[in-house]
Amino acid sequence: MVPSGDPPAAQRAARGDVVVLGGGLVGAACAWRLTQRGHRVALVDPDPGGGSSRAAAGMLAPVNELRTGEDDLLALCLLAAAGFADFAAAVTSTSGLPTGYRECGTLAVALDAGDRARLSQIRSAQQSLGLEVEGLTGRECRVLEPLLDPGVCGGSLIRHDHQVDPRELFSALWTAGQRAGVEHVPQLGEVLVQDGCATGVRLADGTVRRADLVVLATGAAAGQGRVRPVKGQILRLRMPKGEHVLQRTVRGLVRDREVYLVPRENGELVVGATSEDRGFDERVTAGAVYELLRDAQALVPAVTELELVETMARCRPGSPDNLPLIGFGEVEGLLLATGHHRNGVLLAAVTAEAVATLASGGTPSPEIAACSPKRFQKAAEGE
Amino acid sequence: MVPSGDPPAAQRAARGDVVVLGGGLVGAACAWRLTQRGHRVALVDPDPGGGSSRAAAGMLAPVNELRTGEDDLLALCLLAAAGFADFAAAVTSTSGLPTGYRECGTLAVALDAGDRARLSQIRSAQQSLGLEVEGLTGRECRVLEPLLDPGVCGGSLIRHDHQVDPRELFSALWTAGQRAGVEHVPQLGEVLVQDGCATGVRLADGTVRRADLVVLATGAAAGQGRVRPVKGQILRLRMPKGEHVLQRTVRGLVRDREVYLVPRENGELVVGATSEDRGFDERVTAGAVYELLRDAQALVPAVTELELVETMARCRPGSPDNLPLIGFGEVEGLLLATGHHRNGVLLAAVTAEAVATLASGGTPSPEIAACSPKRFQKAAEGE
Repeated sequence: MVPSGDPPAAQRAARGDVVVLGGGLVGAACAWRLTQRGHRVALVDPDPGGGSSRAAAGMLAPVNELRTGEDDLLALCLLAAAGFADFAAAVTSTSGLPTGYRECGTLAVALDAGDRARLSQIRSAQQSLGLEVEGLTGRECRVLEPLLDPGVCGGSLIRHDHQVDPRELFSALWTAGQRAGVEHVPQLGEVLVQDGCATGVRLADGTVRRADLVVLATGAAAGQGRVRPVKGQILRLRMPKGEHVLQRTVRGLVRDREVYLVPRENGELVVGATSEDRGFDERVTAGAVYELLRDAQALVPAVTELELVETMARCRPGSPDNLPLIGFGEVEGLLLATGHHRNGVLLAAVTAEAVATLASGGTPSPEIAACSPKRFQKAAEGE
Repeated sequence: MVPSGDPPAAQRAARGDVVVLGGGLVGAACAWRLTQRGHRVALVDPDPGGGSSRAAAGMLAPVNELRTGEDDLLALCLLAAAGFADFAAAVTSTSGLPTGYRECGTLAVALDAGDRARLSQIRSAQQSLGLEVEGLTGRECRVLEPLLDPGVCGGSLIRHDHQVDPRELFSALWTAGQRAGVEHVPQLGEVLVQDGCATGVRLADGTVRRADLVVLATGAAAGQGRVRPVKGQILRLRMPKGEHVLQRTVRGLVRDREVYLVPRENGELVVGATSEDRGFDERVTAGAVYELLRDAQALVPAVTELELVETMARCRPGSPDNLPLIGFGEVEGLLLATGHHRNGVLLAAVTAEAVATLASGGTPSPEIAACSPKRFQKAAEGE
């Protein structure tokens, strides 16, 4: 849907024209923020919100997503988590729509003795970084979540890893952007580079949208030699009205495999997700659905009786160090906002904030500076 | 879609008006045949072909579906199977559309020693009735179907249990009916009974379609005190082009559970099906999908890599003795054509033939006479 009128005159050209290529959560957030800062913004995407944003479970989980040695990512995710409630409130305030943001915390559980040992190691690592995590017995886990399998033998309670509904958040963010004056161009496009400088976007119909700045937010399709697709398959189940099988996000170690269950207030239960390095591939496979259901049922037997509403596969944008790529790279006039891997929902707001700051020549926070795409340039030069 | 014109004048009213209530395979076949015999026919269904016909795998399997003591059903199914090729050819000839009828035979296999013993018993029972069934070793099964699991330890080859694609068959049959002059009324309806006699159908919009005869072909929704819904959940996978994992229908006993895999020439692989007596319920459940995938993978490990395209649940119309209800019952002017349980696709043609014969006062074959709804009346009186 292309709005028929131009954005409000007051916003035009004061700070230059921007084309945002890619309308997932990150692109939509960037477009909204840039418009608020006085840019005239066009967002190019044939199917806004239809990529990995649509598949995402919406866990806001700096603690649970932490992997050893990813200190920069942890700092960025903690920053994002701290500001998420305000971001969600701002989106709702502008759009009049809910985001499904829910401060429910997360319970990580272990199914067998090996899983318990691994969870305990993870908890020690988390605590050594000063993160708030409580160890629980199996019984204590079942007090919190009575429908957990009797075999669950231990857990970690992470009170500050919350959730949002990425589909609701997207709808609200999209409406906020439209109200602020973002123009939607419903086409595929590619960055137009002339003399080493991005000058706009060439659309699928052959026309060119010129811009002073191009923001690349096409997720796993960004390429740029650094971003690779990491396939995720995910299921959506439905809980009966008034009979929610879980109260909070539950992440499980099930005989050394990982699975998570994210219950929404509207009755949706998201079960995910695979993580497959096999190129760009959005096919749902029998084997992945089987394994997700098997492991979810092992943790919560009542899952067996739930309706299976949807299966989906999308590709996350993975980067070499799991940190996103936010900032200017080798091409002048091209701002990258991709590579968010498993944290795209959580990081959409801080990414948009940083993109708006960089677009007007400002200096981003140290957490964002660590995400500069130029870090790989240095690494390559040092080889 | 209501055709704007009336049926050809030559066909009108010569033999009276018929309303067929229910437009699945059985209803559509009845409407077509009745029109061919000179009746003016209206078919009432808001979603033709959207019920159990859409879910059905399309196995034409008198031998494999045989259960002990169901001699009348066997006779009926053998009659139907013998005539199916001609029926499919007639539908294609009138409609110009394919039906997916495929004379590929069926391989029944056993996974463990217990399954092999049970399959051997079943084979003996089949052979004692004069049916053509060959016993095979596990190795012989894998010569026919190389992607069977190495654990498959025995099998039965049933050369004359074939398949059709119920969705293609329905489209072709629907087109044939439309060309013959069947009028489609896209509404829900219920039989209108006055003084113990069916006089037409009351439509959802409140209007009444009068008829000299009403044919009740609403499948599991038929009710009538005799038909119960038997829920079936079924999956559709997609095989890669040119890499069909199976050549023929494979039915398996997997640790005492049954599963089947029906490969189509277009690359579809149907995996089914549950059989659940739990009232009218079309929800796909996590547990059923999990079990179907588990058992299908146990027989054919390559299933793991296939795309899962569709999950579906519909209700078969079960009868007390698994024989369909074909013929007049307690209400004058009401011809029943329901209760086909697991054999609706196979029996659609013979049912339609019988309905057309009964509608014009003829006497049906003994195989059809055994399906008279009056058999329950007698049983009830004898209580």
